[in-house]
Amino acid sequence: FAKHPKTWKCYLALTRDGRPIKMQRTIFSECFYAMAFSELAISTGHDEYRVEALSMMDKIIYWVREDPTDLLFGYPPMAGEPEVNPLNVPMMILCLVDQMETMDTELSERYAEIAEWSVNQIRAHIQRNGTVILENVDQEGRELPGSSGRVMVPAGWFLLNYAIKNGRPELADTAINKFMIKPFEYGWDKEHGGLFYFLDADGLSPVQLEWNMKLWWTHNEAMIAFLMAYQHTGRLEILKKFEQVFDYVYAKHVDRKYGEWFGYLNRDGTVCMDFKGGPWKGIYYYHNMCHYITA
Amino acid sequence: FAKHPKTWKCYLALTRDGRPIKMQRTIFSECFYAMAFSELAISTGHDEYRVEALSMMDKIIYWVREDPTDLLFGYPPMAGEPEVNPLNVPMMILCLVDQMETMDTELSERYAEIAEWSVNQIRAHIQRNGTVILENVDQEGRELPGSSGRVMVPAGWFLLNYAIKNGRPELADTAINKFMIKPFEYGWDKEHGGLFYFLDADGLSPVQLEWNMKLWWTHNEAMIAFLMAYQHTGRLEILKKFEQVFDYVYAKHVDRKYGEWFGYLNRDGTVCMDFKGGPWKGIYYYHNMCHYITA
Repeated sequence: FAKHPKTWKCYLALTRDGRPIKMQRTIFSECFYAMAFSELAISTGHDEYRVEALSMMDKIIYWVREDPTDLLFGYPPMAGEPEVNPLNVPMMILCLVDQMETMDTELSERYAEIAEWSVNQIRAHIQRNGTVILENVDQEGRELPGSSGRVMVPAGWFLLNYAIKNGRPELADTAINKFMIKPFEYGWDKEHGGLFYFLDADGLSPVQLEWNMKLWWTHNEAMIAFLMAYQHTGRLEILKKFEQVFDYVYAKHVDRKYGEWFGYLNRDGTVCMDFKGGPWKGIYYYHNMCHYITA
Repeated sequence: FAKHPKTWKCYLALTRDGRPIKMQRTIFSECFYAMAFSELAISTGHDEYRVEALSMMDKIIYWVREDPTDLLFGYPPMAGEPEVNPLNVPMMILCLVDQMETMDTELSERYAEIAEWSVNQIRAHIQRNGTVILENVDQEGRELPGSSGRVMVPAGWFLLNYAIKNGRPELADTAINKFMIKPFEYGWDKEHGGLFYFLDADGLSPVQLEWNMKLWWTHNEAMIAFLMAYQHTGRLEILKKFEQVFDYVYAKHVDRKYGEWFGYLNRDGTVCMDFKGGPWKGIYYYHNMCHYITA
């Protein structure tokens, strides 16, 4: 049980016998906690799991919209930190809303406003006349100065899924064209294949040391995105992009001897780290992709 | 001015106009602060800089030996975090003691006990019958379980410098053989040249994504170490190792067009990030090396 009893914060890492090692100033451990409990509720039908999932969902929305103090362990942001709208937060909220509605279809109305807020937050990341998706923009939807303002690591299937479910063809087009096809053009490594992890919108060196590595989860997400976009549109050129990613990962990421995927490749596609599970590579992205592809 | 007025903690990063962005739960920003003020005291002869450097030195020693609460922003370590003796802390203390003594030779006695404590802490990192230097051991000097217990990123010149200054030939031998020559054997990339950033003592994948990259500062430190060891011993095979590192960095790290060094290379020696200064690459390591080599 990885939740702090008082603050609703979750630990990122525990010892084998359950003692906490690490906690983060982000919502992601808590999001995965809410998703896990909602899946438990679906699988077992037990109401207490549904209640737990919804309680955590409320807490996450409170942190994001009202007051992040608990999220930040009581430490407010420092005076020089810009107020950022990071893409991964509204993306994750949209993903959670979908998960909660999958658990209980009567929840759509409850989350309609936060979902719409997320969509608007996400749209603000379309920058430079629609040519790039920037990971961090300011609260007024403007580009931030410096390297953190230029960093790009887009994802689009949460948005497309929401657009399809809610019958929003214009939003679906935005998700496919701005968040998938365009970023795929600049994010694909023309020399060695695979998707870069981080890129700088001005073509400078990102400051993340791992920027040119090829990671399992970005490819998992891209495969879900293109398959969903193909199912929605029937456009063959989108299926071709799915195949392009598929061919890369089955040539480079898949461990043909022992199964599963190598999570971390060097830029040239050679294996950088050969473990199957690690501090960040867990059971979410890969299995989520397998579930989606085979469904 | 990057010091917090109440806690003596220093910020890691500021905006251009001086507002704080980031602070860490380690002693390193504070160590560089103390070093900077002691150099200011040496250059200007102003006593208030000497007092400031010594006050910070006292604070650092208090955090390391007595109570780290302020260092950790009031958050004690989590229940699952092992009590670790990390190599970089006593190394840094030894470096600071040397700096303070350079500023004021009368301080040797004041720091004799903490220096000796540091030497004992450092010695505890010689593990597996003297064949490896492990970065993290437990407080009783035993190897820790898991990947953090197996990680290796050794450095030796602080220890050698201390040994030479204090006329301790046996300790100088330990510094040279255990902390320089032996680690250089396993840390050198036989395929592409250069020193790996992190290695695992069992030959497994380190969990640090950047483990196989070639960084400026590890090579800066290695060059200081081998030159110091050669000056002390006159052994030509040690000078050869200095040359080996020198030839690598002048072929790969040096920017022949615009000067200075590229800080971050891919494993194969190609440039991964082309900026000269970044969130971590500052003015310390490279200029410290130049200062030492030309002195």
